[in-house]
Amino acid sequence: MLTNDQLSQWDRDSFLHPSTHLAQHARGEVQGRIIIGGEGCYITDRDGSRLLDAFAGLYCVNVGYGRTEIADAIAEQARELAYYHAYMGHGTEASVTLSKMVMDRAPDHMSKVYFGQGGSDANETNVKLVWYYNNIRGLPRKKKIISRWRAYHGSGLMSGSLTGLNLFHRKFDLPLDMVRHTTSPYYYRRDTREMSEPLFSAQCAADLEQLIDTEGADTIAAFIAEPMLGTGGIVPPPEGYWEAITPILEKHDILLIADEVITGFGRLGHMFASPAYGLTPDIMTIAKGLTSAYAPLSGSIVSEKVWKVLEQGTDENGPIGHGWTYSAHPIGAAAGVANLKLIDSLGLVENAATVGPYLTAQMQAALGDHAHVGDIRGEGMLTAVELIADRDSRTYFDPDRKITPQIVAAMGRRGVIARAMPQGDIIGFAPPLCLTREEADTVITATTEAVAEVLG
Amino acid sequence: MLTNDQLSQWDRDSFLHPSTHLAQHARGEVQGRIIIGGEGCYITDRDGSRLLDAFAGLYCVNVGYGRTEIADAIAEQARELAYYHAYMGHGTEASVTLSKMVMDRAPDHMSKVYFGQGGSDANETNVKLVWYYNNIRGLPRKKKIISRWRAYHGSGLMSGSLTGLNLFHRKFDLPLDMVRHTTSPYYYRRDTREMSEPLFSAQCAADLEQLIDTEGADTIAAFIAEPMLGTGGIVPPPEGYWEAITPILEKHDILLIADEVITGFGRLGHMFASPAYGLTPDIMTIAKGLTSAYAPLSGSIVSEKVWKVLEQGTDENGPIGHGWTYSAHPIGAAAGVANLKLIDSLGLVENAATVGPYLTAQMQAALGDHAHVGDIRGEGMLTAVELIADRDSRTYFDPDRKITPQIVAAMGRRGVIARAMPQGDIIGFAPPLCLTREEADTVITATTEAVAEVLG
Repeated sequence: MLTNDQLSQWDRDSFLHPSTHLAQHARGEVQGRIIIGGEGCYITDRDGSRLLDAFAGLYCVNVGYGRTEIADAIAEQARELAYYHAYMGHGTEASVTLSKMVMDRAPDHMSKVYFGQGGSDANETNVKLVWYYNNIRGLPRKKKIISRWRAYHGSGLMSGSLTGLNLFHRKFDLPLDMVRHTTSPYYYRRDTREMSEPLFSAQCAADLEQLIDTEGADTIAAFIAEPMLGTGGIVPPPEGYWEAITPILEKHDILLIADEVITGFGRLGHMFASPAYGLTPDIMTIAKGLTSAYAPLSGSIVSEKVWKVLEQGTDENGPIGHGWTYSAHPIGAAAGVANLKLIDSLGLVENAATVGPYLTAQMQAALGDHAHVGDIRGEGMLTAVELIADRDSRTYFDPDRKITPQIVAAMGRRGVIARAMPQGDIIGFAPPLCLTREEADTVITATTEAVAEVLG
Repeated sequence: MLTNDQLSQWDRDSFLHPSTHLAQHARGEVQGRIIIGGEGCYITDRDGSRLLDAFAGLYCVNVGYGRTEIADAIAEQARELAYYHAYMGHGTEASVTLSKMVMDRAPDHMSKVYFGQGGSDANETNVKLVWYYNNIRGLPRKKKIISRWRAYHGSGLMSGSLTGLNLFHRKFDLPLDMVRHTTSPYYYRRDTREMSEPLFSAQCAADLEQLIDTEGADTIAAFIAEPMLGTGGIVPPPEGYWEAITPILEKHDILLIADEVITGFGRLGHMFASPAYGLTPDIMTIAKGLTSAYAPLSGSIVSEKVWKVLEQGTDENGPIGHGWTYSAHPIGAAAGVANLKLIDSLGLVENAATVGPYLTAQMQAALGDHAHVGDIRGEGMLTAVELIADRDSRTYFDPDRKITPQIVAAMGRRGVIARAMPQGDIIGFAPPLCLTREEADTVITATTEAVAEVLG
């Protein structure tokens, strides 16, 4: 029984929560949870519950909770200089240092980083930069962006358009007109069961090529993609996928925007996922792991090829008409510097590369044979368990049965937080990168018991 | 001579600054300035310069620099819990408390607040909420947004479309299709010099009515406006303007979005500008003064009328598909709570209501008769000096002469920061709300001397 006091009343009366059933929340039918602290992989609420957060907030608290190194850096920056803007070449020691640290970690062909606040606004910036790029190049018609069904790139008007999930389109008139979606690289959910993984990848590539032909390559500016599908289902790319996709982009002069908001800074067991998959993106989106969410900060990393055109643009047109008041905010920058140091000193990229696969493998061992478990997959510190009504006919559960929300609630009663992914019955795991094997075992036990409780 | 060391090199090599001439910055032709500290109205750079910041960063450091009360609140929050998300009804003591404090200060007819990171993303949220609102009401065609030329509502794809300034449209293919602009309420720049102020306001209203008729009221969802024009020139509304505009919106069932990013939390000498101008907005945008920029935080305040439809929407469709990872970020919320307390305890709204008009009046006394000063105007702690080549014929300077940037640079050499507004030769002043009369005098002296230096 959660506390129901004046704070709860204020919450119901005043607070419009994101991604929430607003009416139920205001009526008090689902009570909010007030979080008061955290340490490592655990958070604590004010009702005394201590929960293993196997989703790291929203895949973002990569270094874990309660890191005093980052808290101290934030405190010091707040006392010295909480804010100054970054317009017209202004900076702080923290923001300049962070730009250097980000570029040291980014692939060699990348050139500069622009800082925003969150992943959604970073993808907004990316689309603006892409349109500007083709205007400067004298290609004013080359502007459409191709994304993929089941992608997640944010929930703004453009970033939500790039997203390929129903929840973020329905009732919001999205996607906007300049966005097209192509086949989701989701092998488990392929139409033709007999199709091999390489053939499925070839089909994805053929679908993309056909879309480009239909629209006209001279109207397509960029292809945006998470190197590995995240919120759409936590799905590693099928075999041969990127090898088939990237030559098509090159052939048609289409920029690649790699959305590394989830994968950046270690989650897949590499600093960035793009080089690991052989990608050479023109723009990279970063957020979450950049500060481990200790302060809002995102980034758009542009390649030298893109940068040169941006330079030409300002030589021809003067200062670029783009900026947020809170671009490169000093508190975010200070958090970022301390966070990236901590990722290195704690060896968290390596830990993601070992404990993550252990979590996935043990999950497969524990649940792989369950009659209602269709697929268990993962990469680095990202794991998904996909449930299914009937394995043989690959019949999914009726969404109205809310199977996964029930399982996740049952896990919560066992002290473990996982996420019911928004489209399909998929249990998502994205723990802090500091997860230990013992903590992984705790997650697996809670998952196994919860699945048994709900599905037998 | 600014320091040119390794940090400067990193800056040129790695940092894509907002609103900057990218090529000149990278080539080192304009050197960046590294800010290291601040106190009250003053900032300090690493080269030892101490500058009176008469623009409060970007109209945002309302309580002034170096407030330990806010820094301590940030530090404490960072140590206790730097992050947890606000999805699915989650919160922290700080975020819930801040929602209550915001609603206590907002006009009575407002109901709830959604928290984002910056003003641009808040206006993005607002447009999404407006579209959702009319979809739930069964009015799927009623979606266009009317803004005003010279408005500033952000620099994203939609928020930059709402903005009515060339710099933010040019080379970015903005405005997007769903946005229309109507006459700017800028009396000084009226076409017909003989027209009285009330007649000019009537003309603005007639122009709006005509635009609505042309487009069809059944296609127009909302009208967005700063209660007083900000980045477009710092222009108080002309006499009778709002009285003429608001009945038109009501008659045509068009929502009013009041963008109070600049005006909110005291800048005009009132907690909010809307009630002071007799406005009853359906949605209010807040940012800047909400935290005095100590941490990124913005908000969308919705009225009870809008809220009821949002509730209906989630009852019919389930959780709302909108949210940022960093919505209601704990660090921002803690900063906001401390900041709003400080605004009250220091009496900053009252100070803005007295020292602001003093600044404007003394500026008029000092510069009002200058041959190249066309207009000096202001409201609360917002002042503008508009320059002109010839007063009698109202001929403006050629923008290529960069008169205002030269004056602002000359002020900088005198230790005072003002802003060359982006469209027109307008010197902008938006000091911290704690400005003293002595500091106002310093600003006036620097302005007068700099105008004399550049224009004689």
